[in-house]
Amino acid sequence: MILTVTLNTALDVTYRVPRLLAHASHRVTEVTERPGGKGLNVARVLAAIGHEVTATGFAGGPTGHLVRERLATSSPGVRDELVPCAGTTRRTLAVVDEASGDTTQFNEPGPLITAAEWSGFLSRYEALLTGGARAVALCGSLPPGVPVGAYATLVRAARAAGVPVLLDTSGEALRRGVAARPDVIKPNAAELAELTGSRDPLPATRDARRRGAHAVVTSLGPAGLLAATALGTWRAAPPRTLTGNPTGAGDSAVAGLLSALTEGLPWPDRLTRAVALSAATVTSPTAGDFDPRTYEEVRGSVKVTEDA
Amino acid sequence: MILTVTLNTALDVTYRVPRLLAHASHRVTEVTERPGGKGLNVARVLAAIGHEVTATGFAGGPTGHLVRERLATSSPGVRDELVPCAGTTRRTLAVVDEASGDTTQFNEPGPLITAAEWSGFLSRYEALLTGGARAVALCGSLPPGVPVGAYATLVRAARAAGVPVLLDTSGEALRRGVAARPDVIKPNAAELAELTGSRDPLPATRDARRRGAHAVVTSLGPAGLLAATALGTWRAAPPRTLTGNPTGAGDSAVAGLLSALTEGLPWPDRLTRAVALSAATVTSPTAGDFDPRTYEEVRGSVKVTEDA
Repeated sequence: MILTVTLNTALDVTYRVPRLLAHASHRVTEVTERPGGKGLNVARVLAAIGHEVTATGFAGGPTGHLVRERLATSSPGVRDELVPCAGTTRRTLAVVDEASGDTTQFNEPGPLITAAEWSGFLSRYEALLTGGARAVALCGSLPPGVPVGAYATLVRAARAAGVPVLLDTSGEALRRGVAARPDVIKPNAAELAELTGSRDPLPATRDARRRGAHAVVTSLGPAGLLAATALGTWRAAPPRTLTGNPTGAGDSAVAGLLSALTEGLPWPDRLTRAVALSAATVTSPTAGDFDPRTYEEVRGSVKVTEDA
Repeated sequence: MILTVTLNTALDVTYRVPRLLAHASHRVTEVTERPGGKGLNVARVLAAIGHEVTATGFAGGPTGHLVRERLATSSPGVRDELVPCAGTTRRTLAVVDEASGDTTQFNEPGPLITAAEWSGFLSRYEALLTGGARAVALCGSLPPGVPVGAYATLVRAARAAGVPVLLDTSGEALRRGVAARPDVIKPNAAELAELTGSRDPLPATRDARRRGAHAVVTSLGPAGLLAATALGTWRAAPPRTLTGNPTGAGDSAVAGLLSALTEGLPWPDRLTRAVALSAATVTSPTAGDFDPRTYEEVRGSVKVTEDA
């Protein structure tokens, strides 16, 4: 199975309002809720493409209970190995203005994780790594209380267990995690610029490799992916620009990269799958889901070119 | 005991953000949650001033569970007779912009109440009316599925049981409820204008009486209350303008009116208590709570004058 780690899980709530006006009162016309946090999104996509997947991380309080309940209902293929915590799992709220289509986002802080909870999580993580994990994805932000070097610890444990590890985070958590030499990191342009100080994708991607990651797959948004690896540098682009909601496209790319890795596919095929799943996520009518028809169409026509 | 009815209970959530910008992403610095809906606020104040109080209405889903749990913890004096429903109790979200102090409000729609649930509620309500209720407050909006004439039905049942009934709602629910001849309604200026078509408080308050309410107590905001009753017309004003958060001041006025009514106090004393509790709610640091010190100070110095 593939293991995904979401230390800061969330209940993603979406409100639709006819028109957002600061400092006014709004009648919400529609409320939707789904389990969230990058690693849970990756797990959902992996299950949808037929991979065995286990999700771990923290869940606590009434919101954590809802996250687990909805995960079981909506993604029965994802094995729930979330570790309980005393604090309450955060909500994220996206308020969609139906007049403009724009979204205003509110992110609650995560629960405060105690030292005992963190140590309990580490035991569970190590048991899962040695209990059949063929790859692991470490995704998203760190909740309060978790040491800033947490991802470095998790990367080292995966490498010690011989399990390929992908890290998808940002800021200081990414900087520290990269130094522990993960197999893959998947920054977007902004995360890469913050890590390397360069906004030029090709040199920045190569620079990120020198900082410790064995492979760096940079998301270029609608232009696809750029991968710098020990075996070469590739660009993978969708056949045409796909318009829609980019929420979750990066998580779908992670699912594509990891699933293809565990199937033993070479880099160009991994990138093709990642680009096709991302594109199919952008065109899906529901944010974060992917459209199977776009996936089938695009996976046959992703253009992969090798850079000198 | 005093009975309060909240058909559309809520979990009132407050987010604090450093500065609200439409279409931007925000880190929420503080999240607070409390049971809400006007009738639950009235119940909380009644319990705090030492009255026996029972709260009924609907509560359902995970949010309804949280409302009941928090009500039991924060207001142990309120007897919980809420009726379960299959739908999920709504949340209201107030986003406080710490830079300006302004609030942006989002109100979820309530749960859809089925005909069977409504009929189950009516049985519970009638049992509570005849089981020792000395007064009843019908408060707030109607959730979807409840007939628009619901308050007229509840007013008639209370009057048939000989229990004095106060109605605090707005729009069509108020219009229909007034026609059933409640003992008291407590509109604010906007609700009164919607009911009568007049923005002039004195004639509008008298007009509302002619539409069916035995007494009309109009909230004039910081200027206090204006009451038109069978025994006379009074104005009651606080000794000075009190500044603060007016959230919940109307609910505190309802608690003041009803508690004084069940103690057999005359109208001027009922209005004095209502104005003092309202003022103490405005000055409380926590929205919807009241400040006991302001209450003690103001209740001794409310100015009540009789209108010719």
